[in-house]
Parts: sequence; structure tokens; C-alpha cells
Amino acid sequence: MSASESLPRRAPTRTTAAAAARRETLTPERWIQAATDVLVDRGIDNVRVDVLANELSVTRGSFYWHFRDREDLLRQVLQAWRDRATEQLTARLRQANRDARAQLRDVLSLPFRGRAAARAARIELALRAWARHDAMAREAVDQADASRIDYICGLLETIGFDGAEARQRAFLAYGYVVAESLLSTLGSAPERAARRRLVEALLQQALRAPQ
Amino acid sequence: MSASESLPRRAPTRTTAAAAARRETLTPERWIQAATDVLVDRGIDNVRVDVLANELSVTRGSFYWHFRDREDLLRQVLQAWRDRATEQLTARLRQANRDARAQLRDVLSLPFRGRAAARAARIELALRAWARHDAMAREAVDQADASRIDYICGLLETIGFDGAEARQRAFLAYGYVVAESLLSTLGSAPERAARRRLVEALLQQALRAPQ
Repeated sequence: MSASESLPRRAPTRTTAAAAARRETLTPERWIQAATDVLVDRGIDNVRVDVLANELSVTRGSFYWHFRDREDLLRQVLQAWRDRATEQLTARLRQANRDARAQLRDVLSLPFRGRAAARAARIELALRAWARHDAMAREAVDQADASRIDYICGLLETIGFDGAEARQRAFLAYGYVVAESLLSTLGSAPERAARRRLVEALLQQALRAPQ
Repeated sequence: MSASESLPRRAPTRTTAAAAARRETLTPERWIQAATDVLVDRGIDNVRVDVLANELSVTRGSFYWHFRDREDLLRQVLQAWRDRATEQLTARLRQANRDARAQLRDVLSLPFRGRAAARAARIELALRAWARHDAMAREAVDQADASRIDYICGLLETIGFDGAEARQRAFLAYGYVVAESLLSTLGSAPERAARRRLVEALLQQALRAPQ
């Protein structure tokens, strides 16, 4: 089945008052959100101006009020994701608690935040799949990963680990969050809570000398 | 660009002797491999009989010598992946070392095995993206995850952790391997080696009582 066959057919709405009103109120953010939805549900190849215009019941032409071209839209999809899922997220975590150990606990609990976490995990998986064969997406994902690890590394330095070890532990903490999001069907809720507590404790426990 | 536009156009090869010979020697495994390649490079929507026949320079009809339909092919793609990336892998790990600690070290080093590891990571990411909206793929991925964690859990029980804690630690070990495969651009080779040694040590270190 080709991409175009899979789209629901809709009656033309160009000439109705409702569609005209909708077109006028369509913000760039609405296009970015629609593009993100299509990316998650059907992959990057389906994120095309014609598909999105159809989804939003507007003409293709209205797209160009906000974006130069598809590339411009994709760049803004990545930028919006970065703002929301990295910058705003770490700012919120910093504000919620001044204590580094409490912030680390909040980081480790991110995969457990219900539907918002599941949605974020779906978006990230779609972005990582895209990044495997696209340099612009690769750069955005790498920057987000590095920025989050920097944040966690800072917490672990505050807790008392030196630079190199703090960075190694930050990778473990971040890797756990990524894996927990990806493997969310593994284990019951109590099992998941128990392994989160174990990670939290192990991450803050100094290494004993080898026996 | 639609899926069909992105395919390279090839001259018809039906009538050439070379194509006839190729068609006769095409095994089911070759179709499964081609399907896996297309899945990884272009996503599940492009894994279609016409696309694969084009890739392999054979007629669509020859597909039906080996498979009932597309669904049958997809089931065998998943089965082949499961055999190779879970059953054969754990059997090899068990045979390479009798010692549980050495086997655990081998598990943690899987993401570092060069091109084979990178290829395996690309396949798994594509399968996980597919599994987000397909029940058959979801079941295959979940079973593989559970089976690998069972294997690691057995190692940690042998090392001396009790059932529940062994399972929690097995998740951490597996989560680390998944994350290291997914985040392979993060950190230099020495940094990656250092964090692997840290995980290996932390995983085998008993928890201290909370302070």
C-alpha cells in the first residue's frame, strides 16, 4: 500500500467558511505538531506538505505562509523538540528541587510519568530512527543526548563524584532512562519501581576496590 | 517524494539468462535478508513484494514460491531475527565461557563489536519503531527482550544475587547494552570502555544499607 492510498479521503473544504477560519488560525506550531504526529505514526517519509495539508484540511499553499519548504519545517520540528524535551525539561527539573539528589531522583522517574512519558518515548524513538539516515536529525538527537548528560553529570559532581566518574555515571543514569522508556512493557509496575530504586542507590554508591 | 519515486529504475530482466539463473538460486533467506535491509533503510511501509522483487531483480511471481503473502514474509523476518539475535547469540555466549562473570562481561561488551554490532543496533531500532504500531512485531521484540533478560538474570543468580534483585540488575545490564548501542556517538572509545568497566563493577557490587 502506498502512502497516498493510506490517507483517508476527505471532501474538498477550501470553499467553506469553517475551513477559511481554520486556515487563518493555523499557527506554525500547529503545522509542527501535525508533522511530529505524522513522523511518529508513519515515519519521516510521510512528513510531506501534501500529507500535512490533507491532515489539517487546508491547501498546500497555506503551508508557505509559515515555512520556506519541507526542509525548513523539519528543522523547526527538531528545534521544537529540543526546546520542549531538553531545554524546558531540564529547566523545570532544576526549579522543582535545589537538592542534586532529589533532582537525580526526578530524572530517573521521568519514564514513569504516564501518558506524557509514553508520548515522549514514541517521539524520541521516531527521531532516532530518522537520525540513522539523516545528518540534520542526527545532529539534533546527538545534541539533545549530550545536553541531558551534561545536566546529569553536573548533579553527580554536586553529589561528590569527580569529573570522569561523574560523566560515566551520568551515562548510566541516562542510559537507564532511555532503556526504561524503550522497554516499558518489561516487568510489572512494582518491579519497575524496585529497579528504579536500585539504580538510584547504585548510581550514588562509591565503587569498592576490586577484590 | 513517494515510495515508488525513490526506487531506482531498472531495465526489465525477466528474459535474460542471468536473471533466470538468479531466480532459481534465490533462497527464502535471501528474500528475508532483502526485507530486513529495506526495513532498516526505508522503514516497514517499504517492505513490499514489488519493492523487494525490484531490489532482487526478479519477478513478483517468484516471491510466491517461498511465501504465502507479505504477512508470511514479515513473520519469517521476525523469526530469523529472533533465532540470530537471541537464540544463537545466547548459545554462543554460554559456550564461550563457563564462568558467569566472564559471560556477563561478554554481554556488556556486545555493543563494542564493530560493524556487526552497529548493524545489529540498526536492525533492532527499526524493529522497535515498527513494533510501536504492529502487534506481531511488538510480540517478537518483547519476547526477545524477555529472553535476553532471563539469560542475564541467570548469570546474576549464579554470581550470588537473589531472584528479585538478580532480575532488577539484569534489567540494568540489558538497559545499559541497549542504551550503549543506541547512543554510540556519545563519548570517545576510552570513555566508553571506562563506563563499561564501571557498569560491570557496579552490577556485581552489593548494595550498602541506606545511610
